[in-house]
Amino acid sequence: MTAMHPDIERLAFLLGTWTGRGNGDYPTIDAFEYEETVVFGHAGKPFVSYTQRTRGKDGPLHAEAGYIRPAGDHDLELIIAQPTGIAEVHTGRQTGNRIEFSSEWVGRSPTAKRVDRVWRMMSVDGSAMRNELRMAAVGQPFQWHLGADLERVS
Amino acid sequence: MTAMHPDIERLAFLLGTWTGRGNGDYPTIDAFEYEETVVFGHAGKPFVSYTQRTRGKDGPLHAEAGYIRPAGDHDLELIIAQPTGIAEVHTGRQTGNRIEFSSEWVGRSPTAKRVDRVWRMMSVDGSAMRNELRMAAVGQPFQWHLGADLERVS
Repeated sequence: MTAMHPDIERLAFLLGTWTGRGNGDYPTIDAFEYEETVVFGHAGKPFVSYTQRTRGKDGPLHAEAGYIRPAGDHDLELIIAQPTGIAEVHTGRQTGNRIEFSSEWVGRSPTAKRVDRVWRMMSVDGSAMRNELRMAAVGQPFQWHLGADLERVS
Repeated sequence: MTAMHPDIERLAFLLGTWTGRGNGDYPTIDAFEYEETVVFGHAGKPFVSYTQRTRGKDGPLHAEAGYIRPAGDHDLELIIAQPTGIAEVHTGRQTGNRIEFSSEWVGRSPTAKRVDRVWRMMSVDGSAMRNELRMAAVGQPFQWHLGADLERVS
């Protein structure tokens, strides 16, 4: 087993595979439910890898991948790529087992939907994770979009 | 086995795991060699997932993850997240078994090194892949940075 880099020891509570159920809503779509799997890993380097995928009743819905990068005693950076054509660069902060990020930059490919601002939060209590996302997108004001309750499965 | 989405059938030549050796250079660093593993996958949706990691003689070097998104008969989009604090949004084109991307947008976290422009190319001939990257970064003009020769291993 690869030793954890000292810079990410404070993020050890995230490491592992988490699954559970979530629900989403936004003014431009119908409310929906999904199953979510999130994996946080490391390779001995000073960052945490992140992958996420969701499924609805008809098959795979969303996926994304990225990295959390510690940037000081309590500061974090988060970089995410999405197959919807969106890239996010966040700054964030850690409070105990809770991390919260606000987008500094959202990049969009020519065919992507417009996303202007994203806020992400993950908090862990024992083997339970709460995962939330708010955003300003497609001309709508900043608001709640996704929330899921996950359990650590490995 | 999940059926491929029709939109990515023209990218089927990429799918699988590829490993091999590469070398890199840039005016601001010493030339270096590395082992590279690249994985292209799909989940039945209209995009191809991409992960890459490299190792040097002293352990893991780089990693990145992202997605290729078809956007028309011959047009592609590529979204990449890097643990170095860099996010890339590319547009590209396909010519047979060769795909080539130029960055439309490079996002940087507050502690990331400055990267202004990235060009990426992957070409496949049978079970051999050539993977190249050029960039303009840290104040240097646009130029060659990385090249690797990979073989399909699964």
